[in-house]
Amino acid sequence: MKMKVKVLELNAGGKMIGIVNEKDALELGVHPLDKIVLTKGNRKVTVTVDTTRNFIKPGTIVLYHDLKKIIKIRSGDKVYVEPRKPLVSKLYIRKKTDGHELTCLELRTIVDDVIAHNLNDLELASFITALHIHGLTLDESISLSKAMIETGKRLKFPGTVVDKHSIGGVPGDKTSMLVVPIIAASGLTIPKTSSRSITSPSGTADRMEILAPVDLHIDEIKKVIRKTKGCLVWGGSVDLAPADDLFIRIEHPLGLDPLLLPSVMSKKKSVGCKYLVIDIPTGTGAKINNREEAEKLARDFIEIGKSMGIKVDCAVTRGDQPVGYAVGPALEAREALEVVMNMKQSDVFDKATSVAGMLLGMAGKGNRKIAELMVKSGKAERKLREIIEAQGGDPKVKPEDIDVGPYSFTVRSRLGGTVSSISNAALVDICRAAGTPKDRGAGVLLSKKISDSVKEGEALFTIFAEKRQKLNAAIKTAKSYEIYGILSGRRKMLVEKI
Amino acid sequence: MKMKVKVLELNAGGKMIGIVNEKDALELGVHPLDKIVLTKGNRKVTVTVDTTRNFIKPGTIVLYHDLKKIIKIRSGDKVYVEPRKPLVSKLYIRKKTDGHELTCLELRTIVDDVIAHNLNDLELASFITALHIHGLTLDESISLSKAMIETGKRLKFPGTVVDKHSIGGVPGDKTSMLVVPIIAASGLTIPKTSSRSITSPSGTADRMEILAPVDLHIDEIKKVIRKTKGCLVWGGSVDLAPADDLFIRIEHPLGLDPLLLPSVMSKKKSVGCKYLVIDIPTGTGAKINNREEAEKLARDFIEIGKSMGIKVDCAVTRGDQPVGYAVGPALEAREALEVVMNMKQSDVFDKATSVAGMLLGMAGKGNRKIAELMVKSGKAERKLREIIEAQGGDPKVKPEDIDVGPYSFTVRSRLGGTVSSISNAALVDICRAAGTPKDRGAGVLLSKKISDSVKEGEALFTIFAEKRQKLNAAIKTAKSYEIYGILSGRRKMLVEKI
Repeated sequence: MKMKVKVLELNAGGKMIGIVNEKDALELGVHPLDKIVLTKGNRKVTVTVDTTRNFIKPGTIVLYHDLKKIIKIRSGDKVYVEPRKPLVSKLYIRKKTDGHELTCLELRTIVDDVIAHNLNDLELASFITALHIHGLTLDESISLSKAMIETGKRLKFPGTVVDKHSIGGVPGDKTSMLVVPIIAASGLTIPKTSSRSITSPSGTADRMEILAPVDLHIDEIKKVIRKTKGCLVWGGSVDLAPADDLFIRIEHPLGLDPLLLPSVMSKKKSVGCKYLVIDIPTGTGAKINNREEAEKLARDFIEIGKSMGIKVDCAVTRGDQPVGYAVGPALEAREALEVVMNMKQSDVFDKATSVAGMLLGMAGKGNRKIAELMVKSGKAERKLREIIEAQGGDPKVKPEDIDVGPYSFTVRSRLGGTVSSISNAALVDICRAAGTPKDRGAGVLLSKKISDSVKEGEALFTIFAEKRQKLNAAIKTAKSYEIYGILSGRRKMLVEKI
Repeated sequence: MKMKVKVLELNAGGKMIGIVNEKDALELGVHPLDKIVLTKGNRKVTVTVDTTRNFIKPGTIVLYHDLKKIIKIRSGDKVYVEPRKPLVSKLYIRKKTDGHELTCLELRTIVDDVIAHNLNDLELASFITALHIHGLTLDESISLSKAMIETGKRLKFPGTVVDKHSIGGVPGDKTSMLVVPIIAASGLTIPKTSSRSITSPSGTADRMEILAPVDLHIDEIKKVIRKTKGCLVWGGSVDLAPADDLFIRIEHPLGLDPLLLPSVMSKKKSVGCKYLVIDIPTGTGAKINNREEAEKLARDFIEIGKSMGIKVDCAVTRGDQPVGYAVGPALEAREALEVVMNMKQSDVFDKATSVAGMLLGMAGKGNRKIAELMVKSGKAERKLREIIEAQGGDPKVKPEDIDVGPYSFTVRSRLGGTVSSISNAALVDICRAAGTPKDRGAGVLLSKKISDSVKEGEALFTIFAEKRQKLNAAIKTAKSYEIYGILSGRRKMLVEKI
């Protein structure tokens, strides 16, 4: 059926919707939530049907503006509308749901249908859930990685490209902000793309954004890399693996992450990475709870890497407390700057130089000692400032220039002893109540970490907020948790003084 | 945040959406697909966020008209908008996803959140998929049935209420159109609600609609039952178990059906059913493939029935070919009328009198012989005409009054022998191509069924359509299948002549 297009200037969060009059829906033989195929010239797109009795007349189809990019449509255009034929990829999803392994071709068909927006949110949610429950075989992970690469963009950078990736889950992890300048200063190329926070207090893109713009286009990224050999940018606008971005859109609200391996590996391959270190924070309160799990994941990363020509080493790191002392975008950017400037002792230094040392070793360019020297000699700091400048930030920025929230509250210990545990989950919730990641100056600054001794009445941590109301909410949240474990004499007690 | 409401007259297929300006979304700290809670007076509803840059100004929220019923909102009203707190039922869904059994209270919490539209389509799709993969324990099915009953409407009818339900999957099953008048004529009460077709050629509501309106309100249903003791109406507008209807909205597009048991049993309990026969069509091409599966399902139905005071008997029936000869709304209504009028021999008579006989036996009112007599004596016909009249149809309708599609094509056998198999799936696809369920006069009329002998060139079946183009499409579909299996001499061959 030929229909006239009317474009609605709404952002539907990536949902592809076409609204038609109920009479046209009847004529097409479709119901709300069914799929229809729109054809204009040689472009085709599949959208979900919405129906209306009065809002639009028969003969017209209303489309959200998200579609304009895909099918190049404007109000007034004519499109040919027909019900969608049954999708073979729905059968493949059902096959996985019923516990069977999918072939390379079947997974590629699914990825193609995801990119063409042929599969709807329900079908994707069902697929993601089935993948979570049944897991992916190594072959499935490799097939999916390849399908994601083949359907995405490839970038070529000069020199030997290396990269690092943390599977995440530990607050305050500003390691990349040191690893990138160390590596770039050693002459290797490290085009680091990272994510913004979804539910955590801060993503690497959020931290770096305190120092410089991170929302760069591909051409700008290429320029930064040519100039400095490194970058720290947001991956969201790079469009390296569009299928992965569409999966993530469903995975995040469900809190499921079955595509971790293909998601990471496809993006690394797309930037031409040769050597890769995967950081697997492990411990109570991290994503991975024990060494055994960590080792299995590490083996899978290494195997998939082999299949696509990436040499992978994995670092199983401690994930039972925040990395460094600061949690929250501004506080973390400040700490990263202090550490790279050799102004502050922190385990961030240990972690960053370990990871950088592994990368240097893999590429035959040195070891951990060399990485430490890069920081101590000031070379890493100079490189970070070069990158900040290339991305459009102020290369002269000092830690004290970085504003943090003006409202603060310090939590003190009710007794003396040794810190035996710190709850990541509690700190994340406190930060969220304090306003992170939206309020850049909000967060938590620890005074004590695990193994530190603490006296009665001494500060354990300080909460920062940009608004008094949010500080109060954060204090209320803090009261509902047992955040610090203190080993005092023979008894272990969980104690704060609020 | 207080916001002004603007109502959009769009049917979003039950999706609860609120569209706000990007600036307001930032202020609320929410992204597209996140949830926000709207409060007006003492009414609350949770909707999914959509954002727009230009379509609406900050301070206004655009709502679809589906919401008007739930929160009684009109354009110009003020509502209080806030981000939703984390849902505990999301944790329960995750628990099931991870393979653990849910408690009665946990399932009730999920059902409450489904009804309050707190869970979004992704979360429901994920839950349905997890239920499909892990299955439900008997306790879970009982808990879910109870939660669905307690959150739905209850209807009270006079007399002893009995009912039948087929789990479906076999085309042409017009059994209910005979069982209801037989039972009602015997003095028992049978308030039969049934579904319209989603993907099958015809649902019982579609068949009955050829003879009388089926879209009755509860008060009208009560009147019909008081007058005739039976009815054959569409269940969709009765709102007996709203949670189930919301689950079905997600199950249908996914082609998953994990809630079969609670779905059926909650609806039967809600109409006060005491004796229930579940028809389980079994065989190649039916939903249930073998006797073992059928018996397990039967035991589960019986057990759940016990827990809620419904005596359940199950009929495992042959599901390897259509019931009767006709498939498609008008053709089936015509066949049902012919059989109840003793004009035509058909296995519909056998099946209907068996099921009715079981119900009569359970209620101490007779047996299969009595059921057969009800038809042979003309009592069932008189009762069906009473029901047709009470529902607003023509009680004098004759089989030849029912129009079927004017375009037809007869498929003949290429060789003589005995019919050994008929493909349900093929017939369903042919009917769909011919225009069912939308084109009421479309469908297929069989001339031969399994075990019938057939001569070379003799008719196997005839396709009917309302439009020539659709008849051609149906013929094309027929050519792509092996529909009839004919046992000829020693060789079994699949043969039609098109």
